[in-house]
Amino acid sequence: MTITQLDQEQLDEIYAFAVDLGRKTGQLLLESVEKRIGGEASESVEKENAVDIVTQTDEDAEVFIKSAIQKKYPSHKFLGEETYAKGQSRDYLIDEQPTWCVDPLDGTVNFTHIFPMFCVSIAFIVNHKPVIGVIYAPFQDQLFSSCINRGAWLNEKRQLPLIRNPSIPPMPPNAPSKCIFSCEWGKDRRDIPDGNMHRKIESFVNMAAEVGGRDGKGGMVHGVRSLGSATLDLAYTAMGSFDIWWEGGCWEWDVAAGVAILLEAGGLVTTASPPADFDTAPIEDVRLGSRLYLAIRPAGPSKTETGRQTQERTVREVWRRVRQLEYTRPGA
Amino acid sequence: MTITQLDQEQLDEIYAFAVDLGRKTGQLLLESVEKRIGGEASESVEKENAVDIVTQTDEDAEVFIKSAIQKKYPSHKFLGEETYAKGQSRDYLIDEQPTWCVDPLDGTVNFTHIFPMFCVSIAFIVNHKPVIGVIYAPFQDQLFSSCINRGAWLNEKRQLPLIRNPSIPPMPPNAPSKCIFSCEWGKDRRDIPDGNMHRKIESFVNMAAEVGGRDGKGGMVHGVRSLGSATLDLAYTAMGSFDIWWEGGCWEWDVAAGVAILLEAGGLVTTASPPADFDTAPIEDVRLGSRLYLAIRPAGPSKTETGRQTQERTVREVWRRVRQLEYTRPGA
Repeated sequence: MTITQLDQEQLDEIYAFAVDLGRKTGQLLLESVEKRIGGEASESVEKENAVDIVTQTDEDAEVFIKSAIQKKYPSHKFLGEETYAKGQSRDYLIDEQPTWCVDPLDGTVNFTHIFPMFCVSIAFIVNHKPVIGVIYAPFQDQLFSSCINRGAWLNEKRQLPLIRNPSIPPMPPNAPSKCIFSCEWGKDRRDIPDGNMHRKIESFVNMAAEVGGRDGKGGMVHGVRSLGSATLDLAYTAMGSFDIWWEGGCWEWDVAAGVAILLEAGGLVTTASPPADFDTAPIEDVRLGSRLYLAIRPAGPSKTETGRQTQERTVREVWRRVRQLEYTRPGA
Repeated sequence: MTITQLDQEQLDEIYAFAVDLGRKTGQLLLESVEKRIGGEASESVEKENAVDIVTQTDEDAEVFIKSAIQKKYPSHKFLGEETYAKGQSRDYLIDEQPTWCVDPLDGTVNFTHIFPMFCVSIAFIVNHKPVIGVIYAPFQDQLFSSCINRGAWLNEKRQLPLIRNPSIPPMPPNAPSKCIFSCEWGKDRRDIPDGNMHRKIESFVNMAAEVGGRDGKGGMVHGVRSLGSATLDLAYTAMGSFDIWWEGGCWEWDVAAGVAILLEAGGLVTTASPPADFDTAPIEDVRLGSRLYLAIRPAGPSKTETGRQTQERTVREVWRRVRQLEYTRPGA
């Protein structure tokens, strides 16, 4: 079955189901927070290290989502963070079949600390392309959603990006200057010379430093933001709040819904990994399983460039300043 | 006039006025955002560099707040970011008089990009002590408020910190491990060897790196967060979402309301500057004009320590990992 075999009416129905599912799952997450505020203890289990906590809520929410999908669409495939983590392989499991790709709770660390930047993330993928995305952050009641050909929305009433009248602004002429740069410290904190953590930091500092600094790599971004949720980073990039998001190490469920929403809003997602010929290399759409992502917000035309040209110019300016990160797929 | 000459009834009245003023000012900020979303152009003027944008909204909001205060409390002093910035001196201007210390728009960069982490910040200070704090982030409708002896609150209904039943958790035994560490890249991006930017980054990396890394300074914090608003960093520390906030370069109006709320919630605020004898130095309350802040969330007792002891232990573990920052007061 390919996307051409799912007509818009079918997609619209799936979209409505996904939005409803996102809201209900968000409500579950919120009820769990309310229990902790009310004094009922919560269980947390350590996974790989202290940073990687999985809560009972996480698993409960995934069961809830999976059951609802299997009841409504028994022929669709399901890929969730918790089911995947318990399996043996981390091969790239998405194929052309209609597949739900779900993170029941993104921003787990935020959730355990009750910092509001946590959410449920639900994507529907056909032919490797995320065509529906739903992200719901219940503590601040922010629902981001999109369906192919239907636009991307905040709370089903504000179209994304927010600033679009009279036109979506182009990327700034000297981007990354004037841009908000979104990035995450992540879980790989090994203090290995030239390891991922140090390569990330070097990249962050290049983006942040004054123009002319860092041997010409200084990008003087307007601000550096770290929220602790790849999903919400992408949502705010679709909103136009963040101009650039650069990250390595994510899994499909961390980004699938965010990529759907960002693409439908007019954003660009390519690889975080700078090619040697960064000035001329083709800028290809990211492969969902690549684990290395560079996202640029939706952009309109300037007087001399198309919107896409301003985005591609920005991609190259980021590539010029960032390091290769090493995230392989275990078993791949 | 000292605080002993303002009785609780007077303070309660001032508190109600401040909350109302915060909500109304937040509404002004939101209306300005709505205008931009609606396509009406906004004016922005560069100050010191591209990072430091002041908008017309900022000035309008300050005039609104100042007028309301002067009408209601003509004998009180007023200190606002915009009025201060236009003056000649940056001497520390707060004395024992009842003083309103106001940032009409904190998170200006977020505001210009419509990233929701912007807010109005209103503090009332007597005898150098912030006794009332109001922070309102209108895009996500989050109001943080406190009055001395009345507790600290989210949206006037949830007491802070959020997790307090059956008791407020102590700081983790191996803090900063398991802590969310909040910090900001700030505006000083000069690429000077051992300058503020590089000292900050070195400190961030020490806090983040694995335990045993960084010559024993690795803190393996649970997460590193940067929101782009000192005021909201403090608000989320009062909420218990962030465990540690460390920052240099803020002015009084950036922190006064947040300090009021955090202290009333049971938090601790001392200097970001590590003393040479960090293991034994007395941990003193921060001086509001110091520009260097280390905040620890509210904490309850563990089996072997008082809440304050768990906070002080955490302060020393942060001091052990961070560098001195250099922020002087021009004219001081």
